[in-house]
Amino acid sequence: MKPKLIKTSKEMSEIRNRISSKIAFVPTMGSLHQGHLSLVDTAIEKAEVVIVSIYVNPTQFSIDEDLTEYPRDLDKDIKLLKEHQVDYVFFPDDEQMYPQGFKTWVDVEDITQILCGKTRPTHFRGVTTIVSKLLNIINPDLIFLGEKDFQQLAVIKQMVSDLNFQTEVIGCPIVREFDGLALSSRNKYLTAEGRKRALCLYKSLLLAQNLFRGGMVNSNKIISQMSNLIVNAACVIDYIEVFDPFSFEHLPELSPGCRIALAVIVDNTRLIDNIEIR
Amino acid sequence: MKPKLIKTSKEMSEIRNRISSKIAFVPTMGSLHQGHLSLVDTAIEKAEVVIVSIYVNPTQFSIDEDLTEYPRDLDKDIKLLKEHQVDYVFFPDDEQMYPQGFKTWVDVEDITQILCGKTRPTHFRGVTTIVSKLLNIINPDLIFLGEKDFQQLAVIKQMVSDLNFQTEVIGCPIVREFDGLALSSRNKYLTAEGRKRALCLYKSLLLAQNLFRGGMVNSNKIISQMSNLIVNAACVIDYIEVFDPFSFEHLPELSPGCRIALAVIVDNTRLIDNIEIR
Repeated sequence: MKPKLIKTSKEMSEIRNRISSKIAFVPTMGSLHQGHLSLVDTAIEKAEVVIVSIYVNPTQFSIDEDLTEYPRDLDKDIKLLKEHQVDYVFFPDDEQMYPQGFKTWVDVEDITQILCGKTRPTHFRGVTTIVSKLLNIINPDLIFLGEKDFQQLAVIKQMVSDLNFQTEVIGCPIVREFDGLALSSRNKYLTAEGRKRALCLYKSLLLAQNLFRGGMVNSNKIISQMSNLIVNAACVIDYIEVFDPFSFEHLPELSPGCRIALAVIVDNTRLIDNIEIR
Repeated sequence: MKPKLIKTSKEMSEIRNRISSKIAFVPTMGSLHQGHLSLVDTAIEKAEVVIVSIYVNPTQFSIDEDLTEYPRDLDKDIKLLKEHQVDYVFFPDDEQMYPQGFKTWVDVEDITQILCGKTRPTHFRGVTTIVSKLLNIINPDLIFLGEKDFQQLAVIKQMVSDLNFQTEVIGCPIVREFDGLALSSRNKYLTAEGRKRALCLYKSLLLAQNLFRGGMVNSNKIISQMSNLIVNAACVIDYIEVFDPFSFEHLPELSPGCRIALAVIVDNTRLIDNIEIR
């Protein structure tokens, strides 16, 4: 009966080796929402076999972050994945993934030290290390990642290319609530009142898009107006950046195809969002 | 006709995907000697298909090292591999392996910063990165490495385990010249006179073994006598270390199963060797 539940990397790789058809993989930290499920649905369209991993990876959290509070609901996640016809759910524990004496890290330079990497300097090292491990265990033809974590998507694309993983990385569009808030497992941290103010992320991105369409191109001026909007919502800006979506270089002027990304702290919850300027 | 010669990672991985039988892989930097060929012969015994890579990996050399002088003789290497019935020879170039914008490193902590890592701090990072790439391209069942580079063997075993590569790492015994000098591509750098003095590496290891058999166990005393032998041969010691072969912890006393490893500079050539104490 679907999905088959797998706890050990040994069992996962053995099962994988018996599959000769096309495999799609969706790595998650659980607490699944419609954003994850849209990845799953796309994966099901593109491949014969879909494997979802659920693992709250400790190495991508720093000591002062929300590892212990991070929302977990395995039973509900499995129920959702069953409804979406997923074939395998891999949910290893920390002893499986980081046994005593673990010493190896996969690190992407440069593009991991900007944007989210500035305040979370070891975050992407944790992400690339766990994704390397999962790719080696599962060896999928395709891996699906959401564009909400736009920098993460770029970092994993870089890693997969540099280290010659035989897997195609596919980014999928951000899924938003009815009012525009990007779906995130961390939205659960928000109070009803905070939830309203959290809309400032998306509103500020739309503002930038509208200012650009109105003829404004100067990044600093646009970021300044975005900042006002966010500060007026009593939220704290971590960063707002206009950049080239491939090189991640800062752009002094907006142009079609550039990205704007931001991280904002709403009460105690750090949220991220981004859009492509058109 | 064997061996088939492959220049691009794309072709290599395509060929690999068409092979369903057991694959053994021997990574080399070329300039093949009997040490490499013993790995190849063991690989042929253990698997149906044998792939040898020849690639002088620039990222494991530091700026002041011998990258440009490192001996290269691809035609001779291919001739030898043909005689030994190798199936595929993969010899990518630098543009294949490190295209512009390359940013990703695989790093093993701790055991890469001692012994050879002290004077060659980025060496093992280069080794683990290129081996990760080759493992992803070739995805072999087995990889064969020589015990002369004992620390390298341990570092790669750690990496393969930590990152869940689906490959078994097999270490093979050191191959020595008639008089005991460990085979190394760098032996070609030695003058006839230096070649004689280079024997001090193996002689000092045998001395340690004999001192231990004679009842001496104190590591410092034994290292001191080894040092005298090497200095008397007008060679320069980089390090001599007595350590646990698994944890790489320094051992104050020799015991059966411990390793002694050393690096010695003969004229301008840095050579390494090691033995297991029995």
